Amino acid sequence: SVIYRNPLGAAPGLGIAAGTKYIYILPGVPHEMKAIFEHSVGDEIAQRCREACSMTRVITTFGLTESEIVAGLADGLSRSGLKVGYLPGPDGVRLRLTASGSNRDLLEKQLEEATSMIAEILGDRIVSLDGEPVHVVLGRMLIESKTTIAVAESCTGGLIGHLLTEIAGISESLDRDIVAYSNRTKTDVLGVDGSLIETKGAVSEEVAAAMAQGVKQKARTDIGLSTTGIAGPGGGTAAKPVGTVYIGIALGDLVRVEHNLFRGERSTVKVKTAFTALDLVRRLLTKR
Amino acid sequence: SVIYRNPLGAAPGLGIAAGTKYIYILPGVPHEMKAIFEHSVGDEIAQRCREACSMTRVITTFGLTESEIVAGLADGLSRSGLKVGYLPGPDGVRLRLTASGSNRDLLEKQLEEATSMIAEILGDRIVSLDGEPVHVVLGRMLIESKTTIAVAESCTGGLIGHLLTEIAGISESLDRDIVAYSNRTKTDVLGVDGSLIETKGAVSEEVAAAMAQGVKQKARTDIGLSTTGIAGPGGGTAAKPVGTVYIGIALGDLVRVEHNLFRGERSTVKVKTAFTALDLVRRLLTKR
Repeated sequence: SVIYRNPLGAAPGLGIAAGTKYIYILPGVPHEMKAIFEHSVGDEIAQRCREACSMTRVITTFGLTESEIVAGLADGLSRSGLKVGYLPGPDGVRLRLTASGSNRDLLEKQLEEATSMIAEILGDRIVSLDGEPVHVVLGRMLIESKTTIAVAESCTGGLIGHLLTEIAGISESLDRDIVAYSNRTKTDVLGVDGSLIETKGAVSEEVAAAMAQGVKQKARTDIGLSTTGIAGPGGGTAAKPVGTVYIGIALGDLVRVEHNLFRGERSTVKVKTAFTALDLVRRLLTKR
Repeated sequence: SVIYRNPLGAAPGLGIAAGTKYIYILPGVPHEMKAIFEHSVGDEIAQRCREACSMTRVITTFGLTESEIVAGLADGLSRSGLKVGYLPGPDGVRLRLTASGSNRDLLEKQLEEATSMIAEILGDRIVSLDGEPVHVVLGRMLIESKTTIAVAESCTGGLIGHLLTEIAGISESLDRDIVAYSNRTKTDVLGVDGSLIETKGAVSEEVAAAMAQGVKQKARTDIGLSTTGIAGPGGGTAAKPVGTVYIGIALGDLVRVEHNLFRGERSTVKVKTAFTALDLVRRLLTKR
């Protein structure tokens, strides 16, 4: 076999010619595999593919189910000659388009045309034409547009802050994230009116709005984003069952609250809420 | 084949007898697979295993490398007759012990003896004798001991809050988590002295201590936990390179700060910091 040097570890990569195929065997430690790929194997595969190959494009969507996407795109995609895969996840549904053939220019053109068609039909439900997740796209938008944001989380418990701070450079835009698990934190740190919590409940449209406005005002940011909900398994009532979530956004003088009912376990409700909140901000900024 | 009903979806499970083996085929959607397993397949496997079987135990450790664990345990484990697997991850190294044979009582005894030996040698580096992660064990300890906690995160950006709020019922213990990405949040919300940040830097032992004390005092909790560090890729200096992290714990009148230098990318530094911080609290509570 051919040996590929591992710049980050002892285990090398191997390459074995097997008839018309060529098999690469790389170490299982993800960052070592990536390093060997970037160091040598990636270029070699590109070289091998010069003549006959397939090209792939991954498009991230958010806010549509797999069947809604199929309903909208099936006709157009069936005419495109591309192979289409639907990859649903908690951060949206990804479409993987694959074009196969021997003419690279033609493959690129096929992918471009299909992408334009999809962009036209799905509009702002498209998060990224490169497969990137919502928080990465939003983080870059915030940094590039010099828009500042502050977050007030209840049911998501810090997940929104965690996702935003995965993005290098976000400290330019993210001022603070207040995880207000207790009511006293909501009143003392976010300035939410205590009587509002008493009369409407901590999980309510009014408190979501007050949290978003409060954190925006205290942090003096352009945007305030809030979540309050019942992640479960306890705490649900007939009027507000487990999965009830309010997401608040304050931007300029605008305050908007979206009500959702998410299905799933505690952890799933948190993840769905966090990505829905981040995507709301992304779509709001896209419109400006 | 035998059909196993899926209580959560349309795709059923299948069972096929193949000579002396029996093959189960379950749907790939994780919660559906789990549901079928818990509904019928798990009991059936237990039934099939009554006579000849293997038993497994997973032990979670934190704060030791795989080779440190091997050095401490290899002699004892080689005498135990058990198969041992080491599973390293960002939240510690798990040991998987497997005993095989036809006498269930003997297998249980073998596992018990090996577990006692491991517990004696590794001491408080053992997080769980059931394979549970640090945050789950700590969350339960906090709730059961009615200990309250407040968190002030900088470099971890909300990840500690996210992990703690994965635990149902944690609202009894977690008052708030202040993600203080800006210096103004550190002074205004946590009460950190602004001149301390100016003279020592936001990433310093002194500021970590002040953040932990500040959030504990504002939230009136038993424990204050803080992180401040340089997650990268930017922001490193010769004196404080990327990966420099200070973790502060305030408990009663005690304030303790631990300095770490973590290797890895931004996301890895965040994860290592969060689990190290949670494990510090766990060990502190274990000692009480």
